[in-house]
This record gives sequence, C-alpha cells and structure tokens, in this order.
Amino acid sequence: MVDISRLLSRRTGRMKASEIRELLKYASVPGVISFGGGLPNPETFPVDGLVEITEKVLRERGKSALQYGTTEGVDSLRDAIARRMRDKKGMDITKDNVIIMSGSQQALDLLGKLFLEPGKTAIVEAPTYLAALSAFRPYEGEIIGVEMDENGLKTDILEEKMKKFRNEGKFVPFIYTIPTFQNPSGVTMSLDRRKHLLEIAEDFGALVIEDDPYGELRYSGEDIPTLKSLDRDGRVIYFGTVSKILAPGLRTGWVIADKEIAWKFVIAKQATDLCTNTLSQHIIAEAFDSGLVDSHIPEIRKMYSHKRDLMLDMLEDKMPEGTTWTKPEGGMFLWVWTPEGVDTMKMFPKAIENGIAYVVGEAFYPDRSVKNAMRLNFTYSSDEEIKEGVGRLAKTIREFM
Amino acid sequence: MVDISRLLSRRTGRMKASEIRELLKYASVPGVISFGGGLPNPETFPVDGLVEITEKVLRERGKSALQYGTTEGVDSLRDAIARRMRDKKGMDITKDNVIIMSGSQQALDLLGKLFLEPGKTAIVEAPTYLAALSAFRPYEGEIIGVEMDENGLKTDILEEKMKKFRNEGKFVPFIYTIPTFQNPSGVTMSLDRRKHLLEIAEDFGALVIEDDPYGELRYSGEDIPTLKSLDRDGRVIYFGTVSKILAPGLRTGWVIADKEIAWKFVIAKQATDLCTNTLSQHIIAEAFDSGLVDSHIPEIRKMYSHKRDLMLDMLEDKMPEGTTWTKPEGGMFLWVWTPEGVDTMKMFPKAIENGIAYVVGEAFYPDRSVKNAMRLNFTYSSDEEIKEGVGRLAKTIREFM
Repeated sequence: MVDISRLLSRRTGRMKASEIRELLKYASVPGVISFGGGLPNPETFPVDGLVEITEKVLRERGKSALQYGTTEGVDSLRDAIARRMRDKKGMDITKDNVIIMSGSQQALDLLGKLFLEPGKTAIVEAPTYLAALSAFRPYEGEIIGVEMDENGLKTDILEEKMKKFRNEGKFVPFIYTIPTFQNPSGVTMSLDRRKHLLEIAEDFGALVIEDDPYGELRYSGEDIPTLKSLDRDGRVIYFGTVSKILAPGLRTGWVIADKEIAWKFVIAKQATDLCTNTLSQHIIAEAFDSGLVDSHIPEIRKMYSHKRDLMLDMLEDKMPEGTTWTKPEGGMFLWVWTPEGVDTMKMFPKAIENGIAYVVGEAFYPDRSVKNAMRLNFTYSSDEEIKEGVGRLAKTIREFM
Repeated sequence: MVDISRLLSRRTGRMKASEIRELLKYASVPGVISFGGGLPNPETFPVDGLVEITEKVLRERGKSALQYGTTEGVDSLRDAIARRMRDKKGMDITKDNVIIMSGSQQALDLLGKLFLEPGKTAIVEAPTYLAALSAFRPYEGEIIGVEMDENGLKTDILEEKMKKFRNEGKFVPFIYTIPTFQNPSGVTMSLDRRKHLLEIAEDFGALVIEDDPYGELRYSGEDIPTLKSLDRDGRVIYFGTVSKILAPGLRTGWVIADKEIAWKFVIAKQATDLCTNTLSQHIIAEAFDSGLVDSHIPEIRKMYSHKRDLMLDMLEDKMPEGTTWTKPEGGMFLWVWTPEGVDTMKMFPKAIENGIAYVVGEAFYPDRSVKNAMRLNFTYSSDEEIKEGVGRLAKTIREFM
C-alpha cells in the first residue's frame, strides 16, 4: 500500500466527511425516526410529467441534449430562468446574467475557489448551511459567523464586526446569507435587515451572496424582496436551484450575477466539470416552459405546509418547558433550542436509543460554540412519524435534563 | 459597478478561458471546416435506446432516480462499472473502489485539490490534455511536461527528471498520463514503457494517474494492459467516463482507486457537488446492464475507424513534404508536425481565411515551447468535410511556408 499522507495537500486537512452523513448512519437503524436529513419528500417529484418531457426532449433534441454543452449552460434554460427571476424575484437581469451550475453546491465551491484564500475572511450566518462550510473550508480562508435572531442576521452586530475587522486588517470578500427560510434555522431576514446588510456591504466593499433554495416554498406570511432585487451596484450574487421545486437528482442550480462576476464563475466552472448535465438542463427548461414546475409547486407547498403545522403543533404539545423553537413561514427546517446545559451532541446517543434522530446544532456554527440546539426537518417524514418522533424527542430531552 | 479585482483570490490569476473555446469562435464562421473540436459525433448517440431506458428508470425507480444520492454514486452503477473494469480492463477491484464523478473533468479538478499546492510538482505528458492543465493550474502547484514519442511518454527522460527533481527538493505527488490513444497526440504507450513508468513511480513514491476516456475505441492493433491492471501497490488512480462510449451530455465518469484514496475523492467531491446527477447514473447503469453500451460501441468504432482511415489517406495524399503526423490505433485525435519554423499559432488566421480550423499545438504544452504542431479531430466532421478540410489545411501550410 502506498502511503498517501505525505502526498496530500495541506488543504485536505480542512476537508472532512459531512457530519450529517456520519450522524445519519445511526438514523438508518431500523425503528429510528429521522428529522435529521435534508431531503425533499420524494412524493413531490412529478414523475409522470418528467417521463413525458424527457421523451419529448430526447426525441426532438436528443443529439444536442446528449452532447457537451457550453459552460454557461443551455440557452433555453438560461432564458427560462432569467424570465422566472424577473417575474418572481424582481431581478433586473437577462440570460447573460445566468450561469447554470451542477447544483448550487457547485456555486458554493466555485465561490470559495474565486474569493477565499489564506488572509481572507468569509462572513456567514451563525448558524449556517453546513455544506457551505464544507465548500469554503478547503480554500483556507477564515470563516466567521454572525449571530441571528427571529429577523435573521443581526446586521448591527455584523456592522460592528466589519469595523473591527477593518481595524484589524481582516479582508472580507463576501458575506454569505440564506435570507429566506434559512437552513438550518427556518428564519427569514426582515426587509429592514436586508437593506441594512446591503448598506454595510457597500460601505465595506464586500459582495453579498444570497443563497435561495427555499424561496418558493412559502406557506404563510408575505414575500419579502430578494437581496438581488434590492441590489444597486451588482454587489449581490444570487444562487438558485431546482432541487426543492422539482427534483434534486437533476443536480441543477444557477448563479445570477453581474456579467463580469458571472464570467469568473464560467472560467472556474469550465476547469471543474466543463458543463452541467445537458440532458437535465433540457428537461428542466421544458419543465419550466411547459408549466410543469408552476403547476406542481402548489402541491409541494400544500404537503410541506401541513407537515410544518403538524410539527409545530406537536412541539407545542409535547416539549418540556425551557425548550423553544422557530416558526418558519416556509422552507424545510426548524430550529430547536434546548434548555441551557442540554448539549445535543451529548444527548444524541440517548435520542437514538429512544428512536429519534436530529442534527446537532453545533455542526452549523463555524466555531461550534453553541451546544444546546438542533435542526429538525419537517418535510421528509410521514405524518405518523412526525407525531411519534416529536414525542420521542420530548421524552429524550426530559430524560437528559 | 463593484470592483471585484481586489476581492478575487490569487489563484484566479491562473484561471483562463479554454484556448480551444476561444479559437473555436472563429470556427463557427460559416464555411469554416473545424478539426478543432473534441466532440464525439452525435450520430453515434443511441437516442432510441436511451428513450426506452429513461422511461423504464423513471417509471420503476423515479423516486430514487430524482432524489439526492450518496456522494460515492448509485450502487447499481458502481457495480456495473466494477464488473466492466474487471472484465475489460483486467482490474482486480470491487464496487468499493469505484467513485462516480460528474464527468472525468471533475476527477481532474479533485485530483488537483487533493494533491497540488505551492511547492508540489505535477508531471504530465508533453503534449497533454488541455483541460487537465486548466484543472490543475488553480491549485498553484508547478506543472512540468515530459516529452513523448510514438511509444508514448519517454520514461527514460522521466526517470532523469525525477532524479533531478529529487536532488532539487521538488516534490512530485503524481504523474498524469493518458496512455491509450492520447489526447492530443493519438499515441499509445507501449507495454514496456507502462512497466517502466510504474517502476519509476514506485522508486520515487509518486502516484500514477491513468486517464482513459478513449480506451474502448480501438480500430486496429492489439489491446495493451491498463496501468491499473499492472498496479501492484495501489499506486495507480484510473479515470473513466461514458462520454466517448455513450454520451457526454450525461456528464458521468468514475475514479478507480484503492479505498483510502477513493475515500479522499469522496470527501472532496461531497463539498463540491454533493453527488453526481442521479437520473443519469440510473440511466447509465441500465445502459450497461441491458447491453445497450456493448451493442453500440462497435458502431462507434466502425464510424470512427473509417474517418481515421480517410483522414490518414488524405494527409498522405495532400500534405507538403516535411509535414508528419501520428497514426493512432484508436481514439479521436491525431497530431500533425508542421515543418520547423511553421508556427501554427501565427498560421491560424490564414487557416481561417482558407476555411479550416485546428487547435494550435503549443496550447497542449505546459510551457508552450512547441510551435510547429497542431491537433486534428477526425471523428466529428463528415467524410466530405474531412476530404475538403485536409486539402485546405495542406494549402494553408504550403502558402505559409
């Protein structure tokens, strides 16, 4: 056997297997109900519609749908997305601002590749999307979290930190946020905070990354303008995906950015995978153009909205005093604060023993500083599992306290 | 507008748009025949077979074929590839050695990510695959080419260089080769050279990367054992793909490696795109298992073999004295040496004027040191275009000399 340890780059020291993946090994033990995953409910996949569209695409455009495509993406899909972003997200853009990605995870990886390195600092929400941390870490910049409340990122704290960083000579190329139905917290950033965030970014010369995989999954409340629609000087880079509104297995997302920035993503992407799966791009373009996506989203909302309500009701009903949680207006996740001192990592084995899995909150903090929290997914489990699972979780917290 | 120049990482200075892409802009001028591209001929895509398979996959396994998959890849596909690699490539492996990639371009990117950094040196063939250079460059290692002849990489020169590097304190984590029907040269490495390469790698503690996208496209001569089949101590990492035997738009390739190395690719890939398109993975597994791929490869070979013969005949017939070329036994490319002093970059505008495009040879050398060469693709153009195009090319060289 070859000893590869001396051959590996230093950055591999910052790579590790997803914690969720590791924790969820336990969740596949028979009888364990898992609120840990982040999968869409497969009952929402419009299989029949996709069979029809796929046959059409292959028969009508098979030769191009099976060939290499340009790195930017298939034109019909870029057009469809540009229209959608203008209509639904208030963006003033054209096809040329749209670059197709192999899932928005690829956009996160390329973001790190383009902007992070030793001596640079990325700002993220605390807590933030776990796989964004995994994407950024190998590029060897520093990652610092700024806390949130029920109105999203605490921009007053952000502003203070940015001032401090400037004084310390820390260089911040971007601030990464999931402003709408955030993963993991379920929280949505208020309009005031959005405006304040953009002002701060402008003052300090940083980009703002708006990751928006869940924005179309609103179950209550009113839409809030996207950061990109409020962008005055091309400072916001927006990431979208079909993973939560059509199907994640198609691995297709997009970056919306000013042309100069978009071109950087193109060059970085070209060296990474040449182009995104062209068959999927053609299928998705057709799914947008034919109305399949739009006719289908209300069904997803209906199912997930019901499951959110059910989980919130059950939490209300079952949770011990001192435990609190967010009340998301959309998305797939909510966030539970256990009473001070209840370390959810230490509690995890007992939870598995009681037949319930979650993701420990500390995994979502770059500095792992918060111990008494967890993320729950409410979209994947059956209604019965949600009822039973919240009961088991409440029991676990009580026993552990 | 935001000035992003100060926000970009240093590594972006090493990223640039593919030269082929830039050159080929000219090739889309009406009337220009292009031998420049590297696309499979779309007439070889088995559209009908894929329509049938895709419907079957979606109807029978739609919910999992549209869901996120594991980073390692879909089990049925990993099994099918493991069987194929054992049967056709003489490898002693199982499914656990197979990691599915989003095209073998992703494998190149992750290779760079895992093993290159300032202070490390990658050895490549000179000339080598252009997009391998693009993948490696952002990771800021040094890239050094070792020359080839009609028997492939000149391993005696490699050995000398490795000794020199060791004395100079240069650290070489891997040697990257396309041993069979190389892109761009069309050359195949002899068995003696393969054995010598593995000995050298062992002596100097380096990995060997065997990139093999064309291995199944042999039109004449005898198969030579893969490097991976000759590997005694898990030193060889093999990259495969369906791009040239089924369809590139499905963006699916694979890494074959010892488990410890395979796991590094999994962790790196997880942060990069979570998983490869699951729908495509299911389609490809079915295309292998149903025999579609095997029944279809002879048709590709027949078409490409004919086109290779035609181009070789035309070159023999038309080229001016002092011009030489390789005679590939398979693959998609051949390599032309123009007479000393004929700089193919300087000649390019005249070629376009004469209605013919190629890729300039210097682009395939890490140090751009060779000026009198070009790569020709013989698989994409029609027979008429091959006949006419070689004539135009010969005329261009004569005029330029």
